[in-house]
Amino acid sequence: MSNYTHLLLAVDFSATNRHVIRKGLALAEAFGARVSLIHVVEFAQVDLSNELVMPQELELDQELLALAESRLQALAEEHGMSEYARHVRQGSTKREILHLAGEQGVDLIVLGSHGRSGLQLLLGSTANAVLHGAPCDVLAVRVKS
Amino acid sequence: MSNYTHLLLAVDFSATNRHVIRKGLALAEAFGARVSLIHVVEFAQVDLSNELVMPQELELDQELLALAESRLQALAEEHGMSEYARHVRQGSTKREILHLAGEQGVDLIVLGSHGRSGLQLLLGSTANAVLHGAPCDVLAVRVKS
Repeated sequence: MSNYTHLLLAVDFSATNRHVIRKGLALAEAFGARVSLIHVVEFAQVDLSNELVMPQELELDQELLALAESRLQALAEEHGMSEYARHVRQGSTKREILHLAGEQGVDLIVLGSHGRSGLQLLLGSTANAVLHGAPCDVLAVRVKS
Repeated sequence: MSNYTHLLLAVDFSATNRHVIRKGLALAEAFGARVSLIHVVEFAQVDLSNELVMPQELELDQELLALAESRLQALAEEHGMSEYARHVRQGSTKREILHLAGEQGVDLIVLGSHGRSGLQLLLGSTANAVLHGAPCDVLAVRVKS
C-alpha cells in the first residue's frame, strides 16, 4: 500500500503555516487521507521538585495552553479544517510530534522547513529533529524564513 | 498552486529503493507530475593535480558510471519508469541532488530515510543533508536499514 491514509500537520502560528497547510490538504485530497493537526507549546519546563515554583507559573501554563487551543481552532476554521482532530501538546516539539504520530498511526508527518544550514542547523531544526526517529514518512515543506 | 509538478526520486541500488519508488510513483500519479530519477556515484575523488593518479583510475571511474547507468536503466524498466528522465551523477550525493533539483525546476525531492539518530546521525545522513539547503520540498520515505 503506497497511499497515505493519515496525515499529521505540525503547525505553529507563523505566516509560513499556509504553505504547510496547503501542501498537506492537497495531499490529503489526492489520497483521500485523514488529517490531524498538532501544535506544540514549547515553554519553559516547570520543575515540580523545585519548591520555588510559584502556583502562578502553573496557571500561566494553563493559560498558554488554552490560548494555543483557541488559536489552533481559529486556524482550522480559517482553512476549512474544523472537522479535523486537533492536538495541543506541551513540551519538546520533536518528542510530542513523534509520540502523537506513533499513537495515532500517522503515516505522513507534514511540517515546515526553513532550509537552514551551517550555524543555523547546529542551533537546531524541528524538521531535522523529527526526521530522525520518525516512525513514518516526513514531508518537509520549504518555507521562507 | 499546491500541486507538485516535477518529482525527483533519488535512488541507490539497495532493497529499500522500492519504498521510495512506490511512494514517488503514487504521488506522481495523484498529482499528474513528471518524474526524474537520480543516482549519485560517490566514489573517491581523483585529484587531478596529484601526479600519482593513474590513468587506470580514470578508466575505473568511467566504468563505474557506465555500470550505474545500466543499473538505473534496469531499475527504471523494472518499475515501469523507462520513459522518465534518468540522471547519473558523480560526486557528493547532497550537492548533486540539490544541483539537479535546482537546474530542472523540481518541486519535490523524494528519498529514503533510515530514521537514524545519535551517533549514526552525526556520521551523516543523506536525507538530512538534502533537507538543509533544498530549494524545494523534501519527502523522506522511512525505510528499514
